[in-house]
Amino acid sequence: MSEPRVRPKDYVFRTALTWGAGGRGVVRSEGKPDIEFAAPLEFGGHGGVWSPEDLQVAALESCILLTFLYFAARAGVELAGYSSTGEGTVRMGADGPSFTAFVVKPRIVVAEEAQVEAARQAVHKAEDACLVSRSLGENVEVSLEAEVSAAGL
Amino acid sequence: MSEPRVRPKDYVFRTALTWGAGGRGVVRSEGKPDIEFAAPLEFGGHGGVWSPEDLQVAALESCILLTFLYFAARAGVELAGYSSTGEGTVRMGADGPSFTAFVVKPRIVVAEEAQVEAARQAVHKAEDACLVSRSLGENVEVSLEAEVSAAGL
Repeated sequence: MSEPRVRPKDYVFRTALTWGAGGRGVVRSEGKPDIEFAAPLEFGGHGGVWSPEDLQVAALESCILLTFLYFAARAGVELAGYSSTGEGTVRMGADGPSFTAFVVKPRIVVAEEAQVEAARQAVHKAEDACLVSRSLGENVEVSLEAEVSAAGL
Repeated sequence: MSEPRVRPKDYVFRTALTWGAGGRGVVRSEGKPDIEFAAPLEFGGHGGVWSPEDLQVAALESCILLTFLYFAARAGVELAGYSSTGEGTVRMGADGPSFTAFVVKPRIVVAEEAQVEAARQAVHKAEDACLVSRSLGENVEVSLEAEVSAAGL
């Protein structure tokens, strides 16, 4: 008899939006604060509120962090701090616009010097395992440039 | 002499985040309201704040809307209302998690019956042209199920 295969499990995430007057809308997810949005200034929209492009960068950047935390915890890394910057580049090409690259730069502080290398390995794993990265096209480059240090050094 | 080629133009979108105590973080984009986030409840996180997965669905859903508006405006469609729901399915497969499908369901109201068909065509164009859709992998299915009606009918 063949091995029983593990059945993949699906999780569904839901949002809803309403478009309003003045070129702005609101996007909701049940039980969470509303997010006002608009087209970005660069594409004829508004400043001061989130754009779809900003939300895409935020999705990736926060996914990288949470994926890192998962691998860091498994490796016994005690985290003293984590912040990052993220940027996504949209190319307006002949065949239409698309993200071409994302760069996320985490600054990670671990509790002890002995954990620095394990944290670096967790970053490396997160780069490949983050579910938002994994959902992007093959032509979209995701790179992580992490600085890892130990607290008090 | 050969035609001069149009040079593609790049636009960069930036965010930054800080991870905090209690399994929550804050993601920022300059000049815009902060968004608190956490891993989703389904993956051991918190309810009540946005997750990376929610933000990914919001990015796609809002991008579909704004792309639709672009094509609708070009076709002279006068919009009386637009709302939508969006859902993204994450599959936890043997090789890791990934979005497998997004479904966005717009409810579009146009000012006049004569514009219904043009609005439907604009939806069809938006499905292919949305830059967030175009950045996703080939294995990620994006489908739109739009209801278009005329105001007062």
